[in-house]
Amino acid sequence: MITERLASLGIVLPPVFPPAANYLACVIDGDLVYVGGHGPIAGAEVMRGKVGSDLSLDEGRTAARMTALSILATLQAELGELDRIERIVKVFGMVNAAPGFDQMPAVVDGCSDLLVEVFGEAGRHTRSAVGLAELPFGIAVEIELIARLRP
Amino acid sequence: MITERLASLGIVLPPVFPPAANYLACVIDGDLVYVGGHGPIAGAEVMRGKVGSDLSLDEGRTAARMTALSILATLQAELGELDRIERIVKVFGMVNAAPGFDQMPAVVDGCSDLLVEVFGEAGRHTRSAVGLAELPFGIAVEIELIARLRP
Amino acid sequence: MITERLASLGIVLPPVFPPAANYLACVIDGDLVYVGGHGPIAGAEVMRGKVGSDLSLDEGRTAARMTALSILATLQAELGELDRIERIVKVFGMVNAAPGFDQMPAVVDGCSDLLVEVFGEAGRHTRSAVGLAELPFGIAVEIELIARLRP
Repeated sequence: MITERLASLGIVLPPVFPPAANYLACVIDGDLVYVGGHGPIAGAEVMRGKVGSDLSLDEGRTAARMTALSILATLQAELGELDRIERIVKVFGMVNAAPGFDQMPAVVDGCSDLLVEVFGEAGRHTRSAVGLAELPFGIAVEIELIARLRP
Repeated sequence: MITERLASLGIVLPPVFPPAANYLACVIDGDLVYVGGHGPIAGAEVMRGKVGSDLSLDEGRTAARMTALSILATLQAELGELDRIERIVKVFGMVNAAPGFDQMPAVVDGCSDLLVEVFGEAGRHTRSAVGLAELPFGIAVEIELIARLRP
Repeated sequence: MITERLASLGIVLPPVFPPAANYLACVIDGDLVYVGGHGPIAGAEVMRGKVGSDLSLDEGRTAARMTALSILATLQAELGELDRIERIVKVFGMVNAAPGFDQMPAVVDGCSDLLVEVFGEAGRHTRSAVGLAELPFGIAVEIELIARLRP
């Protein structure tokens, strides 16, 4: 049970962050769930700033982990239980990068590592990790993903 | 009928903008259609510039709406009729963002709102809205999407 | 046979570039394969820099072609043979763009053209071509794609 895994890891999911406009946090399409862009938001706490200037690499990695947790909160609310996830297919990790900062993979590892901690081998995914010029409201990281659901 | 909906909304689709190089405007794969990056182009009219400096937020939103209309023109040409669309699954909205501009969601709403106007609940989708450093030919917005077709 | 096509084109695939962190170079999901972000890397050779300043448009196009070859190397290793690919569905081409450089489509053509050379009509895909602020380790181009496998 993923719930027990989360508890044993000492992970408490943040509140679901509702979409700020005319869109959905995720969409189930057949046996896939497409999760739209999430940020490092946990209740009132929001990590903002450019990684490589405002934020260190380690802080960026923490932001990516927070973002993954926000995605899991959305998925748990949508699916009822995270055990419905068969595997994580793909992650698109976008880092609010300071000019010249090029360690995006190490930042997005904060998300990838969390997914593998929680789902084990089923959490292993393909991904891109890139540096964006600007992200909404100055958040440090934005991540979207695709996961497969059990039939 | 979507055609009637468009007429009742006073919407006239722009001419199809043909791909500028060795790629396709969209690809049907099974029951999904993947639409590649489109821009705010309607015949000779092209919205260029960075949102937040060259263009205001409202102009950016208009560009996102124009981009959605260009996507619908492509889909109508490919599908014969837009009624074949069962739902919009996912939108990836990329804004040509001036340094420091972080209102990408409000810009991409121009696309999201149009899709909901045209398709109703079936137009509601998940999405990301992010700020790109540069877009082709300086266009203000580039959007790609995935839609599900009726079986 | 794609192997023969590659030979007749004089193309030798580069060594597979292993993921640098906790993720997979690609994931097969049903009849689709999702390939994560690849760069212009062929063994010890890596094309770095911003297209439009450090690198010319032609060099950028070469980087996109190299990136496509690195993707094919990954796919060959994963699939055993490239003939299992039924078609290329979608390419997302991200160019490390110098400020003001807006010829991303001509750069990403280096990838698109290679895919059509190798796969013929089955290589024709939809795509986006955009300018990123920063890419990992300063690589000139990063590309991800989706392909359909034969059933």
